[in-house]
Amino acid sequence: MKVAIFLGSKSDLDTMKKSADVLKEFGVEYKAYVISAHRAGDLLVKTIASVEKEGCDVIIAGAGLSAALPGVIASRTVLPVVGVPLECINPGKSNGLAGMDSLLSIVQMPPQIPVATVGIGNAKNAAYLALEILGIKYPEIKTKLIEFRAKMTADAETNGGSGIEL
Amino acid sequence: MKVAIFLGSKSDLDTMKKSADVLKEFGVEYKAYVISAHRAGDLLVKTIASVEKEGCDVIIAGAGLSAALPGVIASRTVLPVVGVPLECINPGKSNGLAGMDSLLSIVQMPPQIPVATVGIGNAKNAAYLALEILGIKYPEIKTKLIEFRAKMTADAETNGGSGIEL
Amino acid sequence: MKVAIFLGSKSDLDTMKKSADVLKEFGVEYKAYVISAHRAGDLLVKTIASVEKEGCDVIIAGAGLSAALPGVIASRTVLPVVGVPLECINPGKSNGLAGMDSLLSIVQMPPQIPVATVGIGNAKNAAYLALEILGIKYPEIKTKLIEFRAKMTADAETNGGSGIEL
Amino acid sequence: MKVAIFLGSKSDLDTMKKSADVLKEFGVEYKAYVISAHRAGDLLVKTIASVEKEGCDVIIAGAGLSAALPGVIASRTVLPVVGVPLECINPGKSNGLAGMDSLLSIVQMPPQIPVATVGIGNAKNAAYLALEILGIKYPEIKTKLIEFRAKMTADAETNGGSGIEL
Amino acid sequence: MKVAIFLGSKSDLDTMKKSADVLKEFGVEYKAYVISAHRAGDLLVKTIASVEKEGCDVIIAGAGLSAALPGVIASRTVLPVVGVPLECINPGKSNGLAGMDSLLSIVQMPPQIPVATVGIGNAKNAAYLALEILGIKYPEIKTKLIEFRAKMTADAETNGGSGIEL
Amino acid sequence: MKVAIFLGSKSDLDTMKKSADVLKEFGVEYKAYVISAHRAGDLLVKTIASVEKEGCDVIIAGAGLSAALPGVIASRTVLPVVGVPLECINPGKSNGLAGMDSLLSIVQMPPQIPVATVGIGNAKNAAYLALEILGIKYPEIKTKLIEFRAKMTADAETNGGSGIEL
Amino acid sequence: MKVAIFLGSKSDLDTMKKSADVLKEFGVEYKAYVISAHRAGDLLVKTIASVEKEGCDVIIAGAGLSAALPGVIASRTVLPVVGVPLECINPGKSNGLAGMDSLLSIVQMPPQIPVATVGIGNAKNAAYLALEILGIKYPEIKTKLIEFRAKMTADAETNGGSGIEL
Amino acid sequence: MKVAIFLGSKSDLDTMKKSADVLKEFGVEYKAYVISAHRAGDLLVKTIASVEKEGCDVIIAGAGLSAALPGVIASRTVLPVVGVPLECINPGKSNGLAGMDSLLSIVQMPPQIPVATVGIGNAKNAAYLALEILGIKYPEIKTKLIEFRAKMTADAETNGGSGIEL
Repeated sequence: MKVAIFLGSKSDLDTMKKSADVLKEFGVEYKAYVISAHRAGDLLVKTIASVEKEGCDVIIAGAGLSAALPGVIASRTVLPVVGVPLECINPGKSNGLAGMDSLLSIVQMPPQIPVATVGIGNAKNAAYLALEILGIKYPEIKTKLIEFRAKMTADAETNGGSGIEL
Repeated sequence: MKVAIFLGSKSDLDTMKKSADVLKEFGVEYKAYVISAHRAGDLLVKTIASVEKEGCDVIIAGAGLSAALPGVIASRTVLPVVGVPLECINPGKSNGLAGMDSLLSIVQMPPQIPVATVGIGNAKNAAYLALEILGIKYPEIKTKLIEFRAKMTADAETNGGSGIEL
Repeated sequence: MKVAIFLGSKSDLDTMKKSADVLKEFGVEYKAYVISAHRAGDLLVKTIASVEKEGCDVIIAGAGLSAALPGVIASRTVLPVVGVPLECINPGKSNGLAGMDSLLSIVQMPPQIPVATVGIGNAKNAAYLALEILGIKYPEIKTKLIEFRAKMTADAETNGGSGIEL
Repeated sequence: MKVAIFLGSKSDLDTMKKSADVLKEFGVEYKAYVISAHRAGDLLVKTIASVEKEGCDVIIAGAGLSAALPGVIASRTVLPVVGVPLECINPGKSNGLAGMDSLLSIVQMPPQIPVATVGIGNAKNAAYLALEILGIKYPEIKTKLIEFRAKMTADAETNGGSGIEL
Repeated sequence: MKVAIFLGSKSDLDTMKKSADVLKEFGVEYKAYVISAHRAGDLLVKTIASVEKEGCDVIIAGAGLSAALPGVIASRTVLPVVGVPLECINPGKSNGLAGMDSLLSIVQMPPQIPVATVGIGNAKNAAYLALEILGIKYPEIKTKLIEFRAKMTADAETNGGSGIEL
Repeated sequence: MKVAIFLGSKSDLDTMKKSADVLKEFGVEYKAYVISAHRAGDLLVKTIASVEKEGCDVIIAGAGLSAALPGVIASRTVLPVVGVPLECINPGKSNGLAGMDSLLSIVQMPPQIPVATVGIGNAKNAAYLALEILGIKYPEIKTKLIEFRAKMTADAETNGGSGIEL
Repeated sequence: MKVAIFLGSKSDLDTMKKSADVLKEFGVEYKAYVISAHRAGDLLVKTIASVEKEGCDVIIAGAGLSAALPGVIASRTVLPVVGVPLECINPGKSNGLAGMDSLLSIVQMPPQIPVATVGIGNAKNAAYLALEILGIKYPEIKTKLIEFRAKMTADAETNGGSGIEL
Repeated sequence: MKVAIFLGSKSDLDTMKKSADVLKEFGVEYKAYVISAHRAGDLLVKTIASVEKEGCDVIIAGAGLSAALPGVIASRTVLPVVGVPLECINPGKSNGLAGMDSLLSIVQMPPQIPVATVGIGNAKNAAYLALEILGIKYPEIKTKLIEFRAKMTADAETNGGSGIEL
């Protein structure tokens, strides 16, 4: 296992699945856990230690509202932690603050304990960032990323890059 | 009666019912009133005095828009007042400011007259906070809360805490 | 000891001292600790258990930036936790986001784990709220609060309430 | 007396004096009171009744933070109430939310109880608005306003309107 | 005619009709015009002069987006102008900025040219404010407002004020 | 070709088509390209050079999220670049930040490299601005714009300008 | 004269002078006027017509607060109008809303009447944008811009581009 | 060299120096470059290629305002890019938007091209995050980080963790 994915709540499954999908596409093994920093602090600490022992290199953590999860994980490991701010439809009537609350909670970490924050709801990018981090250690992942980018660039011309009708 | 719940408007019934549901679950007696601070100031003052006489320990107040209700109640009692900022779909076309207006109105109280503010639309947490406050006086409520938390923690491992499929 | 005050950082001393000053004025014993949730998680857990054993009734916690401290404390106790969102001048050049980051981090707690949030930088109100909470258990504190309010009201007329020059 | 000016706090004196200065310039009598809606609710209700009896036509109310004052006054009278959102330097370290909190608290009133809100800190405009309101009843005030505007327009050409050096 | 209602765009008809409905309920005559400040500046100036001649006492103006309409009207008359910030669903995909753009455009007027701003989308309150302003000149309108408030207060007790089920 | 339209993503087609529709209405030739600044940087540079060679006078660029496209284009040409901040529904659950992210990214350009920013989602105005810019060089376009405005003004009176029913 | 610069207030002179400085540097003639849209509407209309007659190609307009000036000018001409949102220290105690009010007022124009908005306080960029617009008509200005950019690029390597000490 | 630090402007030197200081403290080699994405795009592309050839593992990029730099770098490499949103005092009068503009520009990247964003002005955390990333490849850096954290934790008790005077 190279990546551990933590979710603060089961209501985040749909969004965070996108992280898993990207990792699968690149053939990178991961494990996923639903553990709220606020509801199961000891289990969280224990699980972080466990994934470290299993050789995990990068942790992805998605959370909404006050979103302490990524930061609390970051405080318990020196592995890089990628944080995904999530919008939270509950418990309000609407989409609430559109993820501004979780973005600020995750990104504004105190000195010494960083969280590598990606865009609101952007679980895909959390996985791409994890792959880039793994890429500095595993040349085959870096190679795959370079090929992926090359294909993306090559496709650009045919995907509207040489002109479209409006 | 240990808790009084005040609503600024009947349109807030659905959200504020969640406070009542939590209190019921813990067997705590409450009474609920719909009284706008801006439309029935004298009735509000009278009712605050009345719930105080009935032995009320904590007041929960939910309001939207300029949301003066929790603060005005706080100004008329030394009982702890828990404020719930509510989103207000009316009178605009959308969910308006997503509750940022009521959050700031409720939390930014002047010195000496605090309101214990919980998250936007988070009427559940208003009740849990009321229970925690009651818990310092009534040991049986504190015990129930400790058991509730213990169960929550115990459930965590089977609720995705030991790993899930994504 | 009835109240424990937690600070996330020594840079918050000046602001959080205002909580202590109010408690002293009302003759309420407290203890204060500087413990970052992100830098000393185990010490925090241990200290929460310790203040609980000493009979603490209410916890006040002030923090800036991503401000996990009040929420992490709330997740480890069923005592009521009062959260003070603090502005953080460092590490940016200005006063940063004026405390909006810490306000949202502290108030937008997930269901079941509330934090009683007061206004940005309003450490005074954290103490008054703590006193109101204590007041439901200790009649002498409630009496002092009622007298304090009565005096405040009595002074209002001479403090500009009967007219001033502009 | 035609205008009553209410201030939520003595710290607002400097800003609200600008309302008084404009009224004096137009020869309109006013009285001013420092009464916090949260600290002296009964005195406030009593004073509103008293200024109504003295023939007051318009009320100006300035407040900061959660800024309930203008709305609470509006709920106790059918006189037009002009609200001035004030920035509040205390109790935070900086200028806080730059008046966004008080603006939203004052302007987002529930249906039936409007407050005529002017710009943040713009106590001058509160007075000009009061004058315009008085102008529909007192022709001499309307005439003065028309003359004032005419002079403003006439001065425009010489005040850079016909070209300046940069 | 005592009130003139100006709309910036036909897409604002549904919301601004609520102003008219309140005026009708109070038997106050009004006229309504759809004139964009940006698309028909001369017609706007001409119409303002015309409603002034017809004896108009108060102007209500609703606008969305950059919402210059209320301010431009205010710059051309010394009658009190009530501004209604409107949400604008077009031309974006969503409700856009939820009316924060129009609120700031309308309320942040420069000194000397105030607009009496009400809440976002709150066309009802624009009418109530207009009635309050008219009330200082027309005793019968003031009387109706006082009766309306008295009924509102009297109804409060039966509308949930004496307790409800949750 | 006088105008080149760049889109950051195919998901922006519907909105940006409105730019094309206005240009067509005024008989102005354009070409459109879907090229992400972040995914196909070299193709973008090459295409900018190519549209410059074809005699393009104005560039319109629409982008969402971090919205680097208009700025990166502006850095590679001295042609005026009109930027359209777009709302981005993906990858979040809601409309995200309602375009505030892209607005700030596009408008807050560093000195020397301006982008002529229009309103959020307002692709129509991007085309009108392009036409105004072209109008200083091509008198026939300026004439058409003047006629268009004259018609708009003339229609104003019959489009509600002389009074409507509410 | 090719460029007309309009300022809403004399307090904006320092910032808007930066537009003039850039124009001077490029040898482009301009005239400047201080005319508030709200205080001198007729003079504004007259002056717009006058600068059009003098052959003006581009208009730059800077304004703070509700910042109607650029939009009102745009409504009276088909010349491209560049808008500069300005921060306004007065009349509040602080820097107010840091220009967010004027940014939204200027950029969120209704369809058909665009304003080419640049960054908050970025009067320099208003001038560079004006130069780029002029450049499509006057080849010598375009040439100067290309040379300016080339020099900027050439300087980059020696200005820290090839490495610096930190 | 393991880390390359890019600055968008020389005005960011003071803040970004804090990244360098942390790297030095951990004995990690770095190089620093001042290259604006908007002013020297080709030099930037060339320099990214060059630092990749020199064996760079992680890139840190700090930028203010529309802050395209980190994203543009990320689009040209598969190395992990750490973005630091900077406050920009110029060209406005105040601290502008307190870094909210650059935060949103940097964090809201489109799918596939992530930037690992840290807090506003928090260049220190950019370096700590870079060290954590390096730590997965270089065991000695990971060891140093573990020791650093252990010391931080050990110091906590004496740094106010066991109680302070307020």
